[in-house]
Amino acid sequence: MYSFKEKYGEYLSAFEVRLKRFYEELTCRPQILDDSLKYSLKSGGKRVRPVLMLAAADLVGAQNCGVEDYALALELIHTYSLIHDDLPEMDNDDFRRGRPSNHKMFGAGNAVLAGDGLLNTAYYILFERCADGKLFADAAKFMCGCAGVTGMIAGQSADLYCAEKGIKDGDMLDFIVANKTGKLISAAVAVPAILAGGKNFLELRQFGEDLGRLFQLVDDILDEEGNFEHLGKTSGKDKEENKLTYVTFYGAEQCRVYADIMFDRCLKMLEGIDGDTRFFKDVVSFVRYREG
Amino acid sequence: MYSFKEKYGEYLSAFEVRLKRFYEELTCRPQILDDSLKYSLKSGGKRVRPVLMLAAADLVGAQNCGVEDYALALELIHTYSLIHDDLPEMDNDDFRRGRPSNHKMFGAGNAVLAGDGLLNTAYYILFERCADGKLFADAAKFMCGCAGVTGMIAGQSADLYCAEKGIKDGDMLDFIVANKTGKLISAAVAVPAILAGGKNFLELRQFGEDLGRLFQLVDDILDEEGNFEHLGKTSGKDKEENKLTYVTFYGAEQCRVYADIMFDRCLKMLEGIDGDTRFFKDVVSFVRYREG
Repeated sequence: MYSFKEKYGEYLSAFEVRLKRFYEELTCRPQILDDSLKYSLKSGGKRVRPVLMLAAADLVGAQNCGVEDYALALELIHTYSLIHDDLPEMDNDDFRRGRPSNHKMFGAGNAVLAGDGLLNTAYYILFERCADGKLFADAAKFMCGCAGVTGMIAGQSADLYCAEKGIKDGDMLDFIVANKTGKLISAAVAVPAILAGGKNFLELRQFGEDLGRLFQLVDDILDEEGNFEHLGKTSGKDKEENKLTYVTFYGAEQCRVYADIMFDRCLKMLEGIDGDTRFFKDVVSFVRYREG
Repeated sequence: MYSFKEKYGEYLSAFEVRLKRFYEELTCRPQILDDSLKYSLKSGGKRVRPVLMLAAADLVGAQNCGVEDYALALELIHTYSLIHDDLPEMDNDDFRRGRPSNHKMFGAGNAVLAGDGLLNTAYYILFERCADGKLFADAAKFMCGCAGVTGMIAGQSADLYCAEKGIKDGDMLDFIVANKTGKLISAAVAVPAILAGGKNFLELRQFGEDLGRLFQLVDDILDEEGNFEHLGKTSGKDKEENKLTYVTFYGAEQCRVYADIMFDRCLKMLEGIDGDTRFFKDVVSFVRYREG
């Protein structure tokens, strides 16, 4: 019998098998580079992106083409972005997932290099796959585009710019969220579609972008009302720092309405996809109604 | 008639054609991301790595397989590493090539993102090439390995570690130079060998590593005696900051002897390679006897 929790656990376990092998195979010198890279990776989190990717691979029939490597690369990219985001010159966050952030543990210089190292290693893993043929290279290129200056980095840059200049603009807000949050989640669900030869690529990419927006809406609401225990990071910081977020722009009440709209849109998008989408429907609910 | 200066100019022009196309095609939003990326790229420098790569492609017969893209990616990687290296938490350099360093112009947060963006874009360009087949993926993977945690980043991390702990150790010094400087220069000359199916790969890789050591020896000597005008960056800083370098470890006099030994070794290595190696011999002399 299907259970969301069990299914999530299954994907998570499959990912952790790959992650464990990665820890074993990766030995960096000097030791501090090794320690700082692994510290942030081992901080865990829910591994939402790799789980989404393995689930999407199930949905489109891309289970047996090394999709775990793409899931690993995506988690490395996500982790690097958190390390650099937390730096004093960026969001200046001292905590991440309930533990001191990377630069608090290892110093800002080592944190910059830990981030660089994770990003570079992610692509090394993908280049290894690229030798298998064009689809593998296409999938890697798509992920790289989602992470780069037409994706996540553009979103981070706009985020920083608006915070520095005190800009409150709805278009900028959409741009930030679509790129900073949406693109990697979109990569999570669309990469398997590419590996499967393009099956449901457009639907899954759009679903990922919408899910990313829903995710950010709920994140912003939680940041406003949440507490440290649930979030594992300092809450209420966005408001304090005058950051451009959904809540600071629309207010929490309107955000909840917006979240409900995105919730419906995500479910609607799934209806256009053949196959068993139960897990994804439950993901949408999980993202909407999570508490931390 | 062969002239080193003309030949260098030819390779440089070929590279600049590719670079110009890159500037035209790359438009990032927000504007500050676009500006900060291009600022450091346009600071120029001698473009040693791309020139070496185009010359190596000539030597092994890999001119017509998009080697300009690999040269561009390598220059982007080199440029990202300079931006991150100059950050306050790393080498804290206010000048680079005679101009304010990236973080002095755009702030440290934007400089982190400019570096991330260049690294990511380098790999995007390589993933585009990977669709062409296994050799292209192999060459990209090799470059990525040279740049990453088993290459340049390892060297940077060891460099930072030794500076912080005041470590003076010959093995560490070798490790730093071999990785931080040697690996990217090695990539410059060995990537075309991979693209050409492996021709002279081992010889060129070794030549690149030795040339990297020679380059660093001369760089350290110049830093000791050089002046701002020639170097375009603050000189004498290594000593001041108690950094582990060839000069602080061996003293300038012994470094000159060591440089002469590496000079001979580079030339010897070239003798084992078929074809017209005049340009490379002149590169070795140029690196040994440059003044800035």
